[in-house]
Amino acid sequence: MFEKLEQELKNIINLENKPKIILGLSGGPDSVYLFLFLNKLAQEDKIELICAHLNHEWRTEAIIDVEFCKNLCAKNNIKFIAGKASELEIAIKFNGSLEEIGRKLRRYFFNKILKQEDANYIALAHHLQDQQETFFWRIIRGTTLKGLSGMKMLQEAYIRPLLNIEKKDILDYLDKNNIKYLIDYTNYSDKYLRNRIRKYVLPALEKVDSRFSKKFLTTLNFLQEEEAFLNKITENNFNIIFKNINNKYTGNLTEFKKLDIILQKRILIYWLDKIKVKFTASNSFLLEILRFLNNPNGGKHKINQDFSIIKKQNNFMVL
Amino acid sequence: MFEKLEQELKNIINLENKPKIILGLSGGPDSVYLFLFLNKLAQEDKIELICAHLNHEWRTEAIIDVEFCKNLCAKNNIKFIAGKASELEIAIKFNGSLEEIGRKLRRYFFNKILKQEDANYIALAHHLQDQQETFFWRIIRGTTLKGLSGMKMLQEAYIRPLLNIEKKDILDYLDKNNIKYLIDYTNYSDKYLRNRIRKYVLPALEKVDSRFSKKFLTTLNFLQEEEAFLNKITENNFNIIFKNINNKYTGNLTEFKKLDIILQKRILIYWLDKIKVKFTASNSFLLEILRFLNNPNGGKHKINQDFSIIKKQNNFMVL
Repeated sequence: MFEKLEQELKNIINLENKPKIILGLSGGPDSVYLFLFLNKLAQEDKIELICAHLNHEWRTEAIIDVEFCKNLCAKNNIKFIAGKASELEIAIKFNGSLEEIGRKLRRYFFNKILKQEDANYIALAHHLQDQQETFFWRIIRGTTLKGLSGMKMLQEAYIRPLLNIEKKDILDYLDKNNIKYLIDYTNYSDKYLRNRIRKYVLPALEKVDSRFSKKFLTTLNFLQEEEAFLNKITENNFNIIFKNINNKYTGNLTEFKKLDIILQKRILIYWLDKIKVKFTASNSFLLEILRFLNNPNGGKHKINQDFSIIKKQNNFMVL
Repeated sequence: MFEKLEQELKNIINLENKPKIILGLSGGPDSVYLFLFLNKLAQEDKIELICAHLNHEWRTEAIIDVEFCKNLCAKNNIKFIAGKASELEIAIKFNGSLEEIGRKLRRYFFNKILKQEDANYIALAHHLQDQQETFFWRIIRGTTLKGLSGMKMLQEAYIRPLLNIEKKDILDYLDKNNIKYLIDYTNYSDKYLRNRIRKYVLPALEKVDSRFSKKFLTTLNFLQEEEAFLNKITENNFNIIFKNINNKYTGNLTEFKKLDIILQKRILIYWLDKIKVKFTASNSFLLEILRFLNNPNGGKHKINQDFSIIKKQNNFMVL
């Protein structure tokens, strides 16, 4: 059953050194399915598996979820680590929807466990419908190629082996094999845009053409290839323009100004990401910086309370 | 009323030389709306307007459409040219859906009139909902960034001044001003994928978030910028790799092989388009050519009955 999945996993990570993998286990069908697969690999001694669960402490029933995950691991002799959001000493700025905050908290928690356990990867159970929801969620909010190209199977330490699998195949498998999982009733609420996309937009697309899911994956693969190519160009040009002196990146203004605006924007994002500026740059923000950099006068431009960009002779850097 | 539209038109074409514009007039609401706008400019002596209508001869009622368009033009003193599909001496290969064949026939007809009348532009009444339909139509069939980036306001001799206008604003205007237009009942048939998208997918998106249309336009603009940037890189690299000798393009294999596969594919499409190969290259077709070009042996690869690609020493060309 899991042969194809094992092949896909081998395409993205090396199983020969028996990697240590942290699975983000919520107790929902997707993560239980991924647990079954990774647990099989663990029993075959191909990987070392640890499960991690974060209690956001938003719902009183959350304690049931923790117990469910703990028992599943105990029965299979898998190490289980539970955390509480309130116990994370964390300085993330809590902008955005509840969903986004939840995602940031989990990401912080998993990264902490990764370090603490000296593990290699964090496995998440995102599947094809999650890609579809994200795609349409982003179209509805306005996005770029990067936004549309979605999650990747391997992204830094994160692996998502189920990305090409359809939700209905996951549910079919669990139900046929009488495997228990938790149902998160907030998934059904019309309050969240993502849920409304799942309930109304995806079924409409399936209804108008049954090829939708298959062809969506084709589209996504093309977009990912094109996005990866643009990233490569961005990185090459970043390395030409910036010099790293004492861990400070200094950019050459003349070289920067020669580039297409698309590349200038991408290089700014790449740079701000490298120096770990803690916010997501909006398009108008990027245009504001570009206006400053293209202005012939020197000077200083305040980004936020922590950062300013300065121009000095033919160079620019952050202060 | 039409001030904003006139400004947008001025952004893409020069009105100072009083350009001659052929309007593709079907008699439907969109082209009638565009007629009103262009007719106003013609009455103000800012452009020269000619209307052209192609009867596909698929429906017996089609003759009513011709009469409607003819009358609208006569009343406003605008030159009107009608054509019949059966009278076009045409060698287009009729692949694809009825919709696609219709589009190819109209395009051939408009290009013929453009030449014959020594005109500058062909104006078409595509609007924002057409962009949306095309976007989702392509996702459902599988596409690339180019496919998603949609139609442009100015594309060779074609102008589409209504691209940022919503269908409902067009209908509101016509109905408020008691302006007659034709209704094409095939637009309501569930037989066509495009119609099903219009009836089921777009309303679902509007329902889940009222910002959809506005944000869709933001997304489209980003994708168009990114696609234009990739086109620029493609063209630059094409000019490095290919030499034009006696109207034959000869490519340098060593230089070609250095490029990223994404760029190789785009350059092949650009090249096949330049030498007017009369078919749309599928991804598997492109990969087949790339395998041939990257193979160390020389030789010849047949594309179709008219074309072959040959490798000779360090060059490649078509035969």
